[in-house]
Amino acid sequence: MKKPLILVTNDDGIAAPGIRTLIEVARELGDVLVVAPDKPQSGQGHAITIKLPLRVHPVDIFKGVEAYECSGTPVDCVKFAKYKLLKDKKIDLCVSGINHGGNAAINILYSGTMSAAMEASIEGINSIGFSLLDYSWEADFSAARVYARKLMEKVLSEGLQECKLLNVNIPNLPLEQIKGARICRQAACDYTEEFIEGTDPHGQKYYWLGGEFIEDGAAEGTDVWALKQGYVSIVPSTHDLTSYRGMETLKHLENLS
Amino acid sequence: MKKPLILVTNDDGIAAPGIRTLIEVARELGDVLVVAPDKPQSGQGHAITIKLPLRVHPVDIFKGVEAYECSGTPVDCVKFAKYKLLKDKKIDLCVSGINHGGNAAINILYSGTMSAAMEASIEGINSIGFSLLDYSWEADFSAARVYARKLMEKVLSEGLQECKLLNVNIPNLPLEQIKGARICRQAACDYTEEFIEGTDPHGQKYYWLGGEFIEDGAAEGTDVWALKQGYVSIVPSTHDLTSYRGMETLKHLENLS
Repeated sequence: MKKPLILVTNDDGIAAPGIRTLIEVARELGDVLVVAPDKPQSGQGHAITIKLPLRVHPVDIFKGVEAYECSGTPVDCVKFAKYKLLKDKKIDLCVSGINHGGNAAINILYSGTMSAAMEASIEGINSIGFSLLDYSWEADFSAARVYARKLMEKVLSEGLQECKLLNVNIPNLPLEQIKGARICRQAACDYTEEFIEGTDPHGQKYYWLGGEFIEDGAAEGTDVWALKQGYVSIVPSTHDLTSYRGMETLKHLENLS
Repeated sequence: MKKPLILVTNDDGIAAPGIRTLIEVARELGDVLVVAPDKPQSGQGHAITIKLPLRVHPVDIFKGVEAYECSGTPVDCVKFAKYKLLKDKKIDLCVSGINHGGNAAINILYSGTMSAAMEASIEGINSIGFSLLDYSWEADFSAARVYARKLMEKVLSEGLQECKLLNVNIPNLPLEQIKGARICRQAACDYTEEFIEGTDPHGQKYYWLGGEFIEDGAAEGTDVWALKQGYVSIVPSTHDLTSYRGMETLKHLENLS
């Protein structure tokens, strides 16, 4: 039987520990292609590189797995994999991560990890973004690995029906303390931002974004709530940003006389 | 009566012609603050600057309107305006654009113009992103100006109810040929990408993203359809990316034994 083709990417950069975990799992389940940024690209959201050329180089750092580093954003990596490297080959699954740090709630918009997975889902590819709630480079991905493998197996065998994208966050807990997985909706949590002011060595003023994520109001059934309870959160997600409720309530805006 | 406070931004950069049109309209309707990128930031999506400091400078290029150029992304500009410059002041409306080029369909994800407006909407601010279907620097914004003014007036006086974000695209037509405005849903149109290969002056290979937007399948009721008919398209939009349909159909993914 033909093995499934799995595309692996991330936003922490091709050398980040988190992607190695996903690559190991992907190798157990199928044929693997890795295309990932050549440097950290956290917070890049759905950015694409249109005004500059991209540089792409093969790298031999994953024991025989075909892999490329790309100078662009996570979304660029997915586009390059699909349209340049794989062309007509069918990608059975795209996995992105495992991100060093959580991407629940509104973070799905800022996250390069999730945007890469979303880009693949726009192309009709079943896609999963994985994030572990530990920002450190030395994060322990062992529990995340177990859940990533279970979910990837299930999606490869059963598909995702008309939904093509999952935002998966894993609590920073030992495996035995994780209570299981929960299908959730995106929490309405947001940041309160602070700009730290400073003066650089040349006497010029700078501002550095240093916001705080506010977990208050993470209602039952949301991803932030599930993570606080010790569950892996799975948010089925979409790139259709239409507010269908807004379409009903704002019909009068057509009358612009 | 207190004048409304209007925040103006864009992604083409503070010197782009399109933002001048919005600033002119905003001045007619309220007090204006401009915070915009100090250089073009097209395709930046919802990127934020977290690993580098930001530089922000006041600029006196809009005849007495308070304005700042910022080294960051469009989303950074909105965060800076709200959390650093305005602090506790209530922003009554955020307008972004007028973008040089359309942002219908999936472009809402790639567009810095729309991401800036979306960032304001996350903060609960009524927000509108405007885009004209003409990429040229010399684009004629006169018809777009008329619709921008009508819509801004209406939103300032009537609000947007629970929906906080409008994606507005204006066809590249003379005012008298525009048939009016239509409330639409986001079209499921996508790009077919091509990477143009080349060799730089130093003999190094590069790839340049050069995709084509495929309008086929823009069903009736979508923004791409409305624009082709000669209407201004208004898509009420949301930052909640949950697929509520997916939550129903993928409940079985919780069973990861």
